[in-house]
Amino acid sequence: MAGRGNALQAEIVTIGTELLLGEIVDTNSAWIARRLTTIGLNLFHTATVGDNLLRAAKVLGESLHRSNVVITTGGLGPTVDDVTREAVASATERELVLDEDLLREITCYFARRGHRMTDNNRKQAYLPAGAMAIHNPVGTAPAFAVEHGDCVIISLPGVPHEMRYLMEKEVLPFLRDRFHLSAVIKSRILRTCGIGESTIDSRIGDLMRLPNPTVGTAAHPGPSSMIITGRWSLNTLAKE
Amino acid sequence: MAGRGNALQAEIVTIGTELLLGEIVDTNSAWIARRLTTIGLNLFHTATVGDNLLRAAKVLGESLHRSNVVITTGGLGPTVDDVTREAVASATERELVLDEDLLREITCYFARRGHRMTDNNRKQAYLPAGAMAIHNPVGTAPAFAVEHGDCVIISLPGVPHEMRYLMEKEVLPFLRDRFHLSAVIKSRILRTCGIGESTIDSRIGDLMRLPNPTVGTAAHPGPSSMIITGRWSLNTLAKE
Repeated sequence: MAGRGNALQAEIVTIGTELLLGEIVDTNSAWIARRLTTIGLNLFHTATVGDNLLRAAKVLGESLHRSNVVITTGGLGPTVDDVTREAVASATERELVLDEDLLREITCYFARRGHRMTDNNRKQAYLPAGAMAIHNPVGTAPAFAVEHGDCVIISLPGVPHEMRYLMEKEVLPFLRDRFHLSAVIKSRILRTCGIGESTIDSRIGDLMRLPNPTVGTAAHPGPSSMIITGRWSLNTLAKE
Repeated sequence: MAGRGNALQAEIVTIGTELLLGEIVDTNSAWIARRLTTIGLNLFHTATVGDNLLRAAKVLGESLHRSNVVITTGGLGPTVDDVTREAVASATERELVLDEDLLREITCYFARRGHRMTDNNRKQAYLPAGAMAIHNPVGTAPAFAVEHGDCVIISLPGVPHEMRYLMEKEVLPFLRDRFHLSAVIKSRILRTCGIGESTIDSRIGDLMRLPNPTVGTAAHPGPSSMIITGRWSLNTLAKE
């Protein structure tokens, strides 16, 4: 569990000034975190950054340096303040290039709905050179994945229902294949009654030093609870 | 608005493996973000890291390098997996030392409630050398602030009602004085109807390049909306 080179690790970067103003709570990260446990990918970091190209590119650069899988949400819309395409291009040192298939797809999306397509919707058809488009049948913001060394960066829309659809249908199966993932991370929360966190700790502190399963305590979800998290290979589970 | 040295900036680091497992959604960051706007402090980054000393210390080191104010939540409990005290000590290159006043306070807290105090509750009375204790009358996890160069790092409990109490009563007044803050950041969300994000953008794209107020669009909170965020000095507001 000690990081890149040792065990695969993922991180999430949510992009949007509205998150940094506290206008909305980031529920995407927790949802993605739960789904990553189902393919056994460790998540060690998440970050949020605003709609600022330089800062977003810097944060993504650090994430790529540290992790094997970086999942971004947000910043894929058509407007000037949607910086994710440019930030990924900058962090992976690529140009943005027009994806003709994507442009056709976006054009059709608008035509089918009888909506006028503006010039800046064309911007959404530009992807970092070499990116794989991830087709988004539930919205206009096209998602994409970029391979960068031994890492992959996957950019998804911030709108929760679009992000969730693409995670389930495209991203999780892709990651499972791409990294030959064959484990799951399972957690159990044991709630305690009548004894506090420090008493639990004094009794089971030794368990908290195990590498697998990891055992932790939390004061958040109830009066006190223990979170036991283990990595199980799919083969083992199949035999149970 | 271009970062340290230019305008003061804050960041939030939430610490807890339960957040990275998606067991709970981080609502602390959005709440703190909203409160920081009331004292005019820019928030450009937030991060989440698990209960791992090395990773937490590394993330805090990066935050201190980048920002003037770093607010952490979580990891202040009495158990082995509560790493915030040690992570802050490591990131600021200090020893942990016993704070006798704090120890007395914790001892009294338990005595008043007739609860048994375990040895590891003593751990909560250790703070990075030179830290200012922030007394927590609503829980057992003592909070603290450490001055580090021209930065300050403030560590608060992760339990929302404790964190909120300490932010309101202690941290916001402290920051306002410490950094002579005399502005507020105000946002207005204008919801639009019948036109999409890209149409808004094609009409007001020029406004999105203003430094103050900043204008952005968001697809999250409703069908489409514009977020206009401005920095106002308290003197100006008083005249209105």
